[in-house]
Order: sequence, then C-alpha cells, then structure tokens
Amino acid sequence: MARFFVDELPAEGSRYTLSGENAEHARVLRLRPGEAVTLCDGRGTDCPCAVEEGLTLRAGAWAPCAAEPRVRVSLWIAFPKADKAEHVIQKAVELGAAEIVLFPSRYCVSRPEGKALDKKLERWQKIARAAAEQSRRGVIPPVRAVDACAEALREAARAELPVLFYENESGYSLHDALAELGGLRSGAPDASGGRSMTAPTVSLMTGAEGGFSEEEIEKARLAGMKICTLGPRILRCETAPLAGLAAVMFALGEI
Amino acid sequence: MARFFVDELPAEGSRYTLSGENAEHARVLRLRPGEAVTLCDGRGTDCPCAVEEGLTLRAGAWAPCAAEPRVRVSLWIAFPKADKAEHVIQKAVELGAAEIVLFPSRYCVSRPEGKALDKKLERWQKIARAAAEQSRRGVIPPVRAVDACAEALREAARAELPVLFYENESGYSLHDALAELGGLRSGAPDASGGRSMTAPTVSLMTGAEGGFSEEEIEKARLAGMKICTLGPRILRCETAPLAGLAAVMFALGEI
Repeated sequence: MARFFVDELPAEGSRYTLSGENAEHARVLRLRPGEAVTLCDGRGTDCPCAVEEGLTLRAGAWAPCAAEPRVRVSLWIAFPKADKAEHVIQKAVELGAAEIVLFPSRYCVSRPEGKALDKKLERWQKIARAAAEQSRRGVIPPVRAVDACAEALREAARAELPVLFYENESGYSLHDALAELGGLRSGAPDASGGRSMTAPTVSLMTGAEGGFSEEEIEKARLAGMKICTLGPRILRCETAPLAGLAAVMFALGEI
Repeated sequence: MARFFVDELPAEGSRYTLSGENAEHARVLRLRPGEAVTLCDGRGTDCPCAVEEGLTLRAGAWAPCAAEPRVRVSLWIAFPKADKAEHVIQKAVELGAAEIVLFPSRYCVSRPEGKALDKKLERWQKIARAAAEQSRRGVIPPVRAVDACAEALREAARAELPVLFYENESGYSLHDALAELGGLRSGAPDASGGRSMTAPTVSLMTGAEGGFSEEEIEKARLAGMKICTLGPRILRCETAPLAGLAAVMFALGEI
C-alpha cells in the first residue's frame, strides 16, 4: 500500500489532493480509483484514504501508526567513507531508529563540514524519508550531525541505555547492558505479546572504518557510555550499527 | 591482525611461506618481520604465526578459532536483483552464517541459471572468503544455489529451528519460535557467559523484492517451516535476512 508523508492530515470524510513530490510519486505508482493509500503526518498518526480519481483522495478515520516502535533508539555513527552512510541511514530507518546522528572521531577518513555537510545532510534526510515511507514508519527520523566526538558522547550518554560497540571489548555484552537496565529482561517478551511494557530510550554508538581510539573509549566510559562487544566476529563499520540495532529491537520485543 | 585461509596448517615451530592470492594480499599489507598473523584451515582451526621475513612465517601452536559461532545458521535467500546478493552474502558471513543458499521463487525478477549462475556463484564465494578473513571467521561459509523453491523448503525445514520471515505474518514471532524450541530461552544468556550451552541448527529464509506468494507460504508451512514476522516495519529484501540473522545470533548468545 502506497504511503505519503504530508504536513497536515485531512479531516475524516474530506477530500485531499496529493501535491509536489507526493504527486510525482503517485503518478509513478499509477494509483487507480478505489485503491487504498495511507497519508501520514510524520508525527505518528496515519490517515487511511481511498483514491477517488487521479490524485484526489477521500480521507478515512485517523489512527496511530502501527509500525512505529515504542522504544526510542538513537543511532550514533562516526562518519564513514563514501556511500556507506546512505546505506546505514536507509537500513536504520527500516529497522526503526528514532534518529541518526553522525559525528567525527579520531580515525574518521571522511569528515564533511560546512556546505558539503549541509548538502550531505539534505540528501541523507531524503533517503530517510523514502525509507520511512517504504517501511511504513509513522515518523521520518531526523538525520543530523554534531561537530565533535565529545559532544556526541555527552548527548548519547543521556539515554537510559547508552551503548557504544567496541571491537576490543570482549567481556561485557549487550545482554549485560540490558540486564543492568533492570525491569527489562533482554529478549523476554512480556504479556503484551512480545512488546516490552516500558520503552527505554537507547543510544547505540559505532565507530568508523578505523574504529575508536583508546582515548575516545576512555572518554566514552567517563561520559557514561556502556562499552559493549558485538561478539567475536569483527563487523564492518556499516554492519555493526545495523546488527546492534536489530539485536536491540529484538531484545525489546520490536522484532 | 592479518588472516589467511590455507589448505593445510604448518606444524608448530615450522616455517610456512605464503603463496598465490595470500602472497598478493600480504604484499599489499606490507607485513613486517615480527608481526603477528593468523593462518586458518577454513575448518575452524587457527595457527598464530610471526612473520620471519618477506612472506615467510614461523608457526605457533594451533587453536580452535574463537570467532566461529557455536550455532549453525543457514541463510536461505530468494534470488534478489542486481548486487543485493553480494551485499547480503558479505554481511551474512560477518554476522556468522554457516552457509548461504540462494533459490528461485515465484516473484523473483532475477533467476540466474547455467553458466551465468556458475559465474555468479564463483564471485559470491570469493566475497564470502574475503568477508570471512576480514571478520576473523574460522570457516569460509559455502555459497550455493538450489533449482527450485520446493527443494529449498525441503532442505531448510530439516533444521531444528526452521524459520521463514513473511511480511504478511503478524502474530507469530521469532521469540515464539525460539520459545517453542524449548530448552533454549531466547536472549537469556546462560552461565557460560552469554553463549547457549546447546547450539541448535537454524534455517532463516527470506523472499525476493516481490515477497513470497500465498501458495509458497502454504507449501512452506506444510514442509515444516515456522512462518514468522520480523515486526511491523516492512524490511527490504536485503535488510530482512541480516536483521533476522542478527536477532537470532543475539538470542542465542552469539552477539
């Protein structure tokens, strides 16, 4: 079913005409009269509609978006090389990330700034929007960047479950971090059918191709990040955030 | 640390000279005398070595590869379009898949056969080898194809945990399938430090861009596959197998 993000949802029973990029997208899809489509306000509310004719829809009753996760996971990734950021952003949105934040770290090869960064952020945000539509999300996760690793650590550490995945850590795992969070039992679905009753805020942070420096890891520890292993296999910088995200989503009953 | 797959490991204390592709790879890495490298027989045994000079190594004592998962997960993916197969194979090897099997299904757009398939399989196997070296695996997971969906279902269903991820399933989850497996408690690490004592065999099956037909799902059910949801967000065909694999690896204490 086609899905379009719009600024304001139409009232139930009223008509709505798709415009701008949505109209272009709808033309490609060749919507037919009677076909069901969904409008979403990007703030978690859906409006199911039926196509009347062309780009004109008749609005049904609003409802909360069923695909929006109850857990808020921020993904913090050190700037990777080339098009890896695009890949991670697209997949992270599908997997339910609430936001994606990029930051520079010591071993980053790529560290876009100024106008070059603005241009990238604009492109990344478009990718996030398309991925949100495709995966039926109820919000378009923002994609943003911070100027320094220290800033990223300070902000990421505010989550109830602030995790940094580090390839040189072997003892402490995501299971341990989830167990520490208390109340929540990792991977154990509750009576609500696999979704945890409490939805903690989570930060997942991963490094660039060269990983983190020991100094950065010490600073992360001091900031309050939980330094976790992702297992004994060394994951590429574009694989680690998505593996961590899928694991957390599974643990918290969202997969 | 550099890692090379070799046919036979050298005896402890003996000399070994890298050859063929390994020699080429070593030249790129510019190995220095004294540097530690690992040879692996691709059957789960590692031999730590020190560089003596050039491409000549001195072998240390053999040991089981620490990065090889205890659980055997076969990944069954319907032929995807373009280079998505390469992407899934690379990531699946990093995440610990034991093998990757491709198969045609009703809605596959791409269905390579004959020499075209042989060529693809050769390329995919090289990708699997490189990913195994990079991620420190102890085996090179085989990449193969079967001729028909029915054959894939028959073979995949033999696993102790045979899962097919289907976007139109919403009630039955991977948590349910793991709970049914008994003995194993999903996501609950045991006393061995997060690794389950028993290592079940697992099959994870996912569709192509167009998904599975209802008929294929019925046949899968009859064959014994457990039809599972991967959550309410619709994942792309290259995201689903990796999300499922990461979730299973986490549930079984391998992440």
